Amino acid sequence: MGISVKQFEALKSRLSSGKPSRTGDKPDGSSNSESRQERHSVILGIDPSMRGTGYGIVRFEKPHPVALAHGRVSCPSAWEHSRCLLQIFQTLRDVIKEHRPTVCAVEGLFFAQNLKTALIMGEARGAALAAVAEAGLDVYEHAPRRVKQAIVGYGAAQKLAVAKMVQRMLKMPDLPDADAADALAVALTHAQGASRFSLSPAKRC
Amino acid sequence: MGISVKQFEALKSRLSSGKPSRTGDKPDGSSNSESRQERHSVILGIDPSMRGTGYGIVRFEKPHPVALAHGRVSCPSAWEHSRCLLQIFQTLRDVIKEHRPTVCAVEGLFFAQNLKTALIMGEARGAALAAVAEAGLDVYEHAPRRVKQAIVGYGAAQKLAVAKMVQRMLKMPDLPDADAADALAVALTHAQGASRFSLSPAKRC
Repeated sequence: MGISVKQFEALKSRLSSGKPSRTGDKPDGSSNSESRQERHSVILGIDPSMRGTGYGIVRFEKPHPVALAHGRVSCPSAWEHSRCLLQIFQTLRDVIKEHRPTVCAVEGLFFAQNLKTALIMGEARGAALAAVAEAGLDVYEHAPRRVKQAIVGYGAAQKLAVAKMVQRMLKMPDLPDADAADALAVALTHAQGASRFSLSPAKRC
Repeated sequence: MGISVKQFEALKSRLSSGKPSRTGDKPDGSSNSESRQERHSVILGIDPSMRGTGYGIVRFEKPHPVALAHGRVSCPSAWEHSRCLLQIFQTLRDVIKEHRPTVCAVEGLFFAQNLKTALIMGEARGAALAAVAEAGLDVYEHAPRRVKQAIVGYGAAQKLAVAKMVQRMLKMPDLPDADAADALAVALTHAQGASRFSLSPAKRC
């Protein structure tokens, strides 16, 4: 399915206008969650999975948002789960340290064939969110269908369509990896302020 | 259901005789996984859950195994998931640093009502295993039914029966918390060498 120019322009204007503002200053942690939500300028998006967690950091600025970093935590099938979990945790911790996002948006569970799949998906999320919580970030979850709806305008869009749209929105020279693109898409969706709910307060434990 | 003295004595003799040996020296990490399994003298047991992860560290020595530490990572229902996950991660990291276990045994998923439950259970496991993997420990999983079978002699044993048996085996002055007792039971089961399979190599990522 295609992406109309109209859809793209509408999205672009939503993303670049008004929210988030260009204050550039980082939240100091003392304000309440509500007000901080409004002025996050660097968002970490995560699409967790055991073998290929996607992550992307987007800075919102004029004239258009910019991808500061993006990638995929690749864990070969020969790796045991705990090794993958550590890899996810450490990669995200490093990325957070380097780019200092101010909030995290994570892609929710779309579909699990069975309990085992859900458990494994949960493990990946657990390791990822532990790293995010360690950095004291708020976490918001967005359903995959809503991310696609927000980015491509169609809830059942294919991964390639999402990646292409993300590439256009962020003016990236190359098509991002599909998992990284999903993560960037969650970050972009979060900035639109659509359909989110809090999974976590920003407080450290 | 009761625990017969015969069952208890049989278990006790299995636990205190032969394996693990009383060498007292710690594995140096250079030996292969097979041989290390045989001489682990300090085992970390974990029973992961979002609101009450049980943990217990057992040192195997004559005349009987000793609980070095045990507890429950209590996370009130008002806490968001990511806060719980960080609490689980940090508590286990601290416990591991203090007591230096040489291997980890984790209780497997017994029963999940639905995908959401499995996902949440998985998140807790993910945070726990990331902490364990960070310390470079091997992780082994044991099914809850097998733990009960090994400790109480009955796969459908109640939590109280497990706690009482764990108290007897470790000669603890007080009845341990039910979740902590489950974790100690996994560690004791692992020492028996019954029905285990590797989830993780000892290598750091």
